[in-house]
Amino acid sequence: MKNVYLIGVGLIGGSMLLDLRAHYPEAVFYGIDHNDDHLDQAISCGVVDHKATMEDLINADLVIVSIPVDATVNLLSQVLDNINDDSLVMDVGSTKEAICASVANHKNRRQYLATHPIAGTEFSGPQAAIKDLYKGKTMIVCEVEKTAFAQQELGKGLLEKLGMRVRYMTPAAHDKHIAYVSHLSHISSFMLGKTVIQEEANERDIFDLAGSGFESTVRLAKSSPAMWTPIFAQNKEHVIAGLDGYIDNLVSFRESLKNDNHTAIYNEMAQTNRIKTILKGIQNGK
Amino acid sequence: MKNVYLIGVGLIGGSMLLDLRAHYPEAVFYGIDHNDDHLDQAISCGVVDHKATMEDLINADLVIVSIPVDATVNLLSQVLDNINDDSLVMDVGSTKEAICASVANHKNRRQYLATHPIAGTEFSGPQAAIKDLYKGKTMIVCEVEKTAFAQQELGKGLLEKLGMRVRYMTPAAHDKHIAYVSHLSHISSFMLGKTVIQEEANERDIFDLAGSGFESTVRLAKSSPAMWTPIFAQNKEHVIAGLDGYIDNLVSFRESLKNDNHTAIYNEMAQTNRIKTILKGIQNGK
Repeated sequence: MKNVYLIGVGLIGGSMLLDLRAHYPEAVFYGIDHNDDHLDQAISCGVVDHKATMEDLINADLVIVSIPVDATVNLLSQVLDNINDDSLVMDVGSTKEAICASVANHKNRRQYLATHPIAGTEFSGPQAAIKDLYKGKTMIVCEVEKTAFAQQELGKGLLEKLGMRVRYMTPAAHDKHIAYVSHLSHISSFMLGKTVIQEEANERDIFDLAGSGFESTVRLAKSSPAMWTPIFAQNKEHVIAGLDGYIDNLVSFRESLKNDNHTAIYNEMAQTNRIKTILKGIQNGK
Repeated sequence: MKNVYLIGVGLIGGSMLLDLRAHYPEAVFYGIDHNDDHLDQAISCGVVDHKATMEDLINADLVIVSIPVDATVNLLSQVLDNINDDSLVMDVGSTKEAICASVANHKNRRQYLATHPIAGTEFSGPQAAIKDLYKGKTMIVCEVEKTAFAQQELGKGLLEKLGMRVRYMTPAAHDKHIAYVSHLSHISSFMLGKTVIQEEANERDIFDLAGSGFESTVRLAKSSPAMWTPIFAQNKEHVIAGLDGYIDNLVSFRESLKNDNHTAIYNEMAQTNRIKTILKGIQNGK
């Protein structure tokens, strides 16, 4: 692999390049971003070597599209227009249905691999990129059957080098499941942070009274609105279904508490304690 | 200090003793617990030296009551009945109004110091006790003016040795604020875990798709129902008020999403990002 292009030099794509550079010492890594400061930071962080433009993609062996999912829907066709016959184009968006649909009929569809790495932090930008972010993590790959064998092989090779486990899903199944396991977590965290900030006019009280438990539950409320607004918008139907289930559970917990039904409260928590065993796998990096 | 008694040999009191033992090498540490297995574990973990009974409290220089808050309300008067004139009795419960009220008119009220350490983990039991849990953390002290000067001094000395910051509050203010900053976090986490488990009949999907973000937001759902049910029950009024605010915010977020009001969604998240600066203090151990 000689020429790698990263479109969107942020945490997700940047962390990927930090690892790939070690495996492809001979390759040159290029960054494309509408934010020139981020490009300069990406170069100074060693994420990419040079700035590039969409026209340069004709030289790409690999293009990683790592931008907000609404921008991906708008740009992905143009990326496939600009590549050569041997290129592999991957996106890493947190939604898959709309993105896969946007190139479903593109003449170069077979050079595209739809992926979503289950990894990241609440931070963003090239300076937030870290090595080994993907080691032991899951990469969801959608519609693999629509990608040409050569590009599949190249993509699988990259994921192996990143140390990732591959889970194949349909875009529809991905968006439905991820709404519950990821998108809902972000909304619960943002709304918890909002509720506490609303109540605690004096932030000193939050500062003094909040412990590691609060820090853990609101950590995702530090996430980038520019990245998450289009994710929620694209996955609207499943996110609303998840929110409905969550709100129903909160309302019924509130009713049990209001009616002093302490047995019900106890049992709900006891049953949910099962999450311990489920999370073990996650904590062990799966 | 010669004789220290811990009633309830779990994570909170046990971690306190692990640190205090280093500062009072000459003292003997006794455990009182209705769970004899926990007492044996506490001895083998080095949390306490010997088992004891309520009758032994007459020999106590310090008694730390670290049991579920409903049990504290029932037991605290009896503890104050059994001590000598120089003893200090501290509780570490996550609620303060009901506990303080339970001994408001006790003849030995001045020997009691009402405290709540803002520290802990999602685990419980003596084997979960860890050293330095309290270093740099906040200790809420309520109604300090009702505690005799000698016992105040002893208590403050202990907190200094644990490396804690002291924040003085009324029981009413404590219960109101902590409902938002702690109790609400636990409910949001438990209900998020419940919602995802309900939806994901196949736990393999949670295991594969859940990342560190989900792990962080549901971490508190591992907490002990036996400890948290009475906390929610005793702080019912404030917890319900907090839940109402939280549910309202979730419903309005859902409405904005349903109506494709992406500007509203973006702005809500952007405003809540302020939590970053508030949390900095928490992450730095305050």
